[in-house]
Amino acid sequence: MMIGKNYIGNKQSAQGSKNYKTFNPQLNRENEILFTEATPQEIDEAVYLASEAFKTFRTVSGEQKALFLNAIADEILALDDELIQTYCMESGLPEGRAKGERGRTVFQLRSFADLVKEGSWVEASIDTAQPDREPLPKPDLRKLLIPLGPVVVFGASNFPLAYSTAGGDTAAAFAAGCPVIVKSHPMHAGTGELVASAIIKAAEKTGMPNGVFSNLNSSGIEVGTKLVKHPQIKAVGFTGSIRGGRALYDLAAQREEPIPVFAEMGSVNPVVILPNALKNRGAALAKTYAGSITLGTGQFCTNPGLLLAIKSEALSNFVSELANEIAKIEPSCMLHPNIIGAYESNKSKMMAQKGLTVVSDVKKEVNANYARQAITTVEGHTFLENTNLHQEVFGPFSMVVQCKDANQLELIISKLEGQLTATLIAEEKEEAHDYSRIISALQNRVGRIIFNGVPTGVEVCPSMVHGGPYPASTDSRFTAVGINSIKRWVRPFSYQDWPNELLPQELKDENPLRILRQVNNMLTKDKI
Amino acid sequence: MMIGKNYIGNKQSAQGSKNYKTFNPQLNRENEILFTEATPQEIDEAVYLASEAFKTFRTVSGEQKALFLNAIADEILALDDELIQTYCMESGLPEGRAKGERGRTVFQLRSFADLVKEGSWVEASIDTAQPDREPLPKPDLRKLLIPLGPVVVFGASNFPLAYSTAGGDTAAAFAAGCPVIVKSHPMHAGTGELVASAIIKAAEKTGMPNGVFSNLNSSGIEVGTKLVKHPQIKAVGFTGSIRGGRALYDLAAQREEPIPVFAEMGSVNPVVILPNALKNRGAALAKTYAGSITLGTGQFCTNPGLLLAIKSEALSNFVSELANEIAKIEPSCMLHPNIIGAYESNKSKMMAQKGLTVVSDVKKEVNANYARQAITTVEGHTFLENTNLHQEVFGPFSMVVQCKDANQLELIISKLEGQLTATLIAEEKEEAHDYSRIISALQNRVGRIIFNGVPTGVEVCPSMVHGGPYPASTDSRFTAVGINSIKRWVRPFSYQDWPNELLPQELKDENPLRILRQVNNMLTKDKI
Repeated sequence: MMIGKNYIGNKQSAQGSKNYKTFNPQLNRENEILFTEATPQEIDEAVYLASEAFKTFRTVSGEQKALFLNAIADEILALDDELIQTYCMESGLPEGRAKGERGRTVFQLRSFADLVKEGSWVEASIDTAQPDREPLPKPDLRKLLIPLGPVVVFGASNFPLAYSTAGGDTAAAFAAGCPVIVKSHPMHAGTGELVASAIIKAAEKTGMPNGVFSNLNSSGIEVGTKLVKHPQIKAVGFTGSIRGGRALYDLAAQREEPIPVFAEMGSVNPVVILPNALKNRGAALAKTYAGSITLGTGQFCTNPGLLLAIKSEALSNFVSELANEIAKIEPSCMLHPNIIGAYESNKSKMMAQKGLTVVSDVKKEVNANYARQAITTVEGHTFLENTNLHQEVFGPFSMVVQCKDANQLELIISKLEGQLTATLIAEEKEEAHDYSRIISALQNRVGRIIFNGVPTGVEVCPSMVHGGPYPASTDSRFTAVGINSIKRWVRPFSYQDWPNELLPQELKDENPLRILRQVNNMLTKDKI
Repeated sequence: MMIGKNYIGNKQSAQGSKNYKTFNPQLNRENEILFTEATPQEIDEAVYLASEAFKTFRTVSGEQKALFLNAIADEILALDDELIQTYCMESGLPEGRAKGERGRTVFQLRSFADLVKEGSWVEASIDTAQPDREPLPKPDLRKLLIPLGPVVVFGASNFPLAYSTAGGDTAAAFAAGCPVIVKSHPMHAGTGELVASAIIKAAEKTGMPNGVFSNLNSSGIEVGTKLVKHPQIKAVGFTGSIRGGRALYDLAAQREEPIPVFAEMGSVNPVVILPNALKNRGAALAKTYAGSITLGTGQFCTNPGLLLAIKSEALSNFVSELANEIAKIEPSCMLHPNIIGAYESNKSKMMAQKGLTVVSDVKKEVNANYARQAITTVEGHTFLENTNLHQEVFGPFSMVVQCKDANQLELIISKLEGQLTATLIAEEKEEAHDYSRIISALQNRVGRIIFNGVPTGVEVCPSMVHGGPYPASTDSRFTAVGINSIKRWVRPFSYQDWPNELLPQELKDENPLRILRQVNNMLTKDKI
């Protein structure tokens, strides 16, 4: 049951005087429960507990961490209807989405449980000694990945479960051996509190140290700012706006001891539609993209906000079809009045840009907080000249850039900011083959490239990259999705000539965990 | 033959009017050749060429990159005596060191050649499609590591070969597929130019694109600053002082598009000597450590600048022995008048700190630029109270901290800044076992921990970590030494539903390169 308090470790606490409520955008009214923002003292206590917890949590075995992660998944499922109802009440999203996102969250937790239980993820590497080597003996060196320390995770507005309290960042950090302090997202503080209660229960049931997790309520920027600047915090995970992510990145970079910030931020996810594909299946593509642009009311970070093609009659037909198809879709609810406010405002600003043509802009009356989708077009040279047109309009909005020719298309791609994804729509591989320079230009700007599909839908699997060149993320060398996202929270550590019995299990001669290790340049599960 | 010009790609160029010479510290006089600093136009041209070269270099096969890297090694060896003499003339280091460092440089280049020729380093990962999955089909996803783009490498004063022009950073960047622009170190511009000529020759012989490498002369901070701020530069490698590395890190973080800076910086490399070890072999340890502290005139980043022990008669004896042993060692030459100047100044400042006792300070007359080694001691509480005492004195200087008890020792360790290494000297594993909290505290502060050895000597092998928590490096998640240092310059990239024949070799169904890949969670060299 929600009570509006913070979790400072396993203790519920509400010492502050600053309160706020969440909002039900479908009913267009505030929800009842009053949340109490964390005070500076509560923040300090949460960080202190996390630092203390780190001393033991960082040595907890993979098997124990797996029990913890699976227990979190179990406790989240045990929240059952209360969680689903709270999620819907705080996000305006439908029950099906709530259940789907819960499924994904549980899947992520269990995937990390499997990863750490198996154990080879630490990339154990052993180079044995050569005492007789000339001119100098070679020492014995053994390496593995170890956790960075306490991590702060910022809940994301558009994924109350999968990218928030017990989402991918948190699951990866726990798997790594890092305590987590969540800065709860104010739009879904109740969902956050419920999931936090599940994590606390799981930690207690599986014997994790108090402080391995805290959940701090916050409606402004103060709590997050204080957390990121705290000397005992060693890394930050964030999903949200460029402005928010960059502010945290700057704070972290200006610390006496800078720390890594992995922020997954804005992206317009360019889609390049090649001429033959446009000619042969323009109508079908228009229908598919009308669906992708409006999916989840356009509130996915992989929403296709930019469609690029070379001018032709087929392109004109496609634009008309897209306008028709998108107008058929029923407007749907956005997450919060602030989100719809920003959408309406950004859409208006974009539509006021010189040279932009509005080809579809639903005008009919809609419920409060429901977003009206829109499609615009612009000439290639106009897009090149005005970088305002490159900005993301978060919501069901997309822009079709009509390029003069393939060279202009390539130039536009090379001028784009970094993106999470790009999509190539081609008449099978033959047409793609003719546009290899376009493909090459796209690859240089993004983290993932899709063939004849849509960018929405981020499969959680080891081969997924969710990240990309700035500003898609603050560090393109990592992914936010999939088991490799654990690498954001770990560092390599090496033991030289260390006695076998004092080594961690992963590096002992006898390989008691039976993990895969690189021994003198050979991958093996064998003993030394 | 040296001519004092920059390499802007394969063209020798000296359009600027700012000149400087290198210095022979052994002879205490300037060397003859006049080096011309790169102009802003030359910098822009080098970056332009690097960006253009990246378009093809990033797709060059591992086999071709291996030929290039091995050719660099060959060309460096072909420079023969001219290189060794120039190295010695510009560093004051002995010929044996020059040859040893050349051997290491060549070994590093060949290790990266082997790595990319074999090819599995790209961490190829494939998750095949499941078109019938419910509720949604699973797409085919395939991932590999790709290069970031043009990298700037700053030459290090203390390793004219192994951490400079064709050193570890450059070799790793080439292996990754990144063009490199070296900001040559002004103290060894001639050595740098010779090695640059070897790289250019190798690039031409193996058909690499012009601009894959440039070498820019620079005596101040302007060239480096402009390079790091250049929008087309995508990453930076640096080895040097905390002040220098932090300045570059700040510049990079303040860019519109922040880029990764891997700076390997200061470290005092704490050595903890446990009581029984001190009692049983204090004299031998004193001799060993006198050697380690003065090795290379104390100019290694792993120099043991801080010895920590619990007070006892044995510790007093050890301090006396260490003072005796170090006084026996002949002073030797530092790299440059600026380096010896900084050493003398920092040593004096340190010796002026309240509570510091000087137990050995060689006073005898020495040649110009020769460093006089020194040993000091301080009480544990004094060290805790005065963080000036935690600073590095780059050179043959060390401080023995006499701790009240094990608790104070642990507290001191927990208060230390991040370090490259820590060393534990124990009477075999039994004594180490009794001090597990000390070991745990050390691990939390460093990148590598050594048992009963010395920190000097950095073995180049896959299990080496050369890096550590800030300020040892700007990002503890990477190492500067060993093949894994390639990870600083690459990012994961994923293909979704991409046609097999358009995929890179590494990800094709038939696995034509026969590399090890993770396919549906199984490591295998098999085809799909």
